[in-house]
Amino acid sequence: MKHYPEAMYRLIRQFCKLPGIGEKSAERFVMYLLTAPEPEVNSLAASIRELKKQVTVCNTCFCFSDSQTCRICRDPARDSSLVCVVESPADMAAVEKSGAFTGVYHVLQGLLSPMDGIGPDELRIRELIARVSSGNVKEVVIATSTSVEGESTADYIYKSLKPFSVNVTRIASGVPMGGELKYIDQVTLKKAMEARRAV
Amino acid sequence: MKHYPEAMYRLIRQFCKLPGIGEKSAERFVMYLLTAPEPEVNSLAASIRELKKQVTVCNTCFCFSDSQTCRICRDPARDSSLVCVVESPADMAAVEKSGAFTGVYHVLQGLLSPMDGIGPDELRIRELIARVSSGNVKEVVIATSTSVEGESTADYIYKSLKPFSVNVTRIASGVPMGGELKYIDQVTLKKAMEARRAV
Repeated sequence: MKHYPEAMYRLIRQFCKLPGIGEKSAERFVMYLLTAPEPEVNSLAASIRELKKQVTVCNTCFCFSDSQTCRICRDPARDSSLVCVVESPADMAAVEKSGAFTGVYHVLQGLLSPMDGIGPDELRIRELIARVSSGNVKEVVIATSTSVEGESTADYIYKSLKPFSVNVTRIASGVPMGGELKYIDQVTLKKAMEARRAV
Repeated sequence: MKHYPEAMYRLIRQFCKLPGIGEKSAERFVMYLLTAPEPEVNSLAASIRELKKQVTVCNTCFCFSDSQTCRICRDPARDSSLVCVVESPADMAAVEKSGAFTGVYHVLQGLLSPMDGIGPDELRIRELIARVSSGNVKEVVIATSTSVEGESTADYIYKSLKPFSVNVTRIASGVPMGGELKYIDQVTLKKAMEARRAV
């Protein structure tokens, strides 16, 4: 490959690092940017540069936020006594899009996976227990994926919260087993949320 | 949609403008960038910003270049008397990857398309005629697509170059390699039959 200028190859290689992007797609992106208006290209570059500076993590729910407390946690219309436990911000977004949940979230930032060296201390489980022990939480909905790691994480959380007088529920298995929460269609997710039951 | 910080939505919307990228893919890109190392993200932003500054168009063949004359045009190993006419830099790259061409290129930067208001003056046809009339070109290979626009552009170029003592050829059309004969369309098969040659 030496038929394009070096600046194009450099950007093609960098685009290839994005998830699901191969050389052909990366080449199309670069061709597009070369013909796109200059302000659009500069503003894309600026947004990428600013992303990490402007996005932080919420002190309460550990989801992405633009301030110390995220929009959902500081929204008075949300029921703060109802906490939905999810693996990642993408899972939180999936539940939000279903429109079936009016409480707040707790993002674990991963799932228990002893093979990968991820134990309870690597996740935000201690912070979840602290939230529950403060006494303001009435129900914890465990909405981890129905994969092996998701189920065992749900089980661990259930056992950890047993000493507290809190109602612990699990989203219904309308979700197919082995499914990744963030890829499930919204209607299925809504059904699963509505059919949650005591463990 | 108000579950992510505004900086994330802004970048998701901008990624959606890239060809073939929808909201889901754009969201995955943003999630990836949020967890990627800071130098990698900054260097992606810098490469995008620098792209248009560092990439220009070759004065001879009108392909992307990092200087006034591109790598291929200034390579003494390439046969400058053999010119391949293509629609776009991506087509040039496709021919280069085939490894079957040792001459130089002429990028039209489009195809004739009266419906879209693209006539001969919008393409680099005048510059091609000037190249040929300089007398150094022995053969022009027309390698535009075999679409309606590609064929009529090829025809127009052939007629424009008739007054000059230059050999004008067209890339062969026929059954693609690895193609199942029963799935090939009738026009292609007709072309392939007409252009049959002794083995």
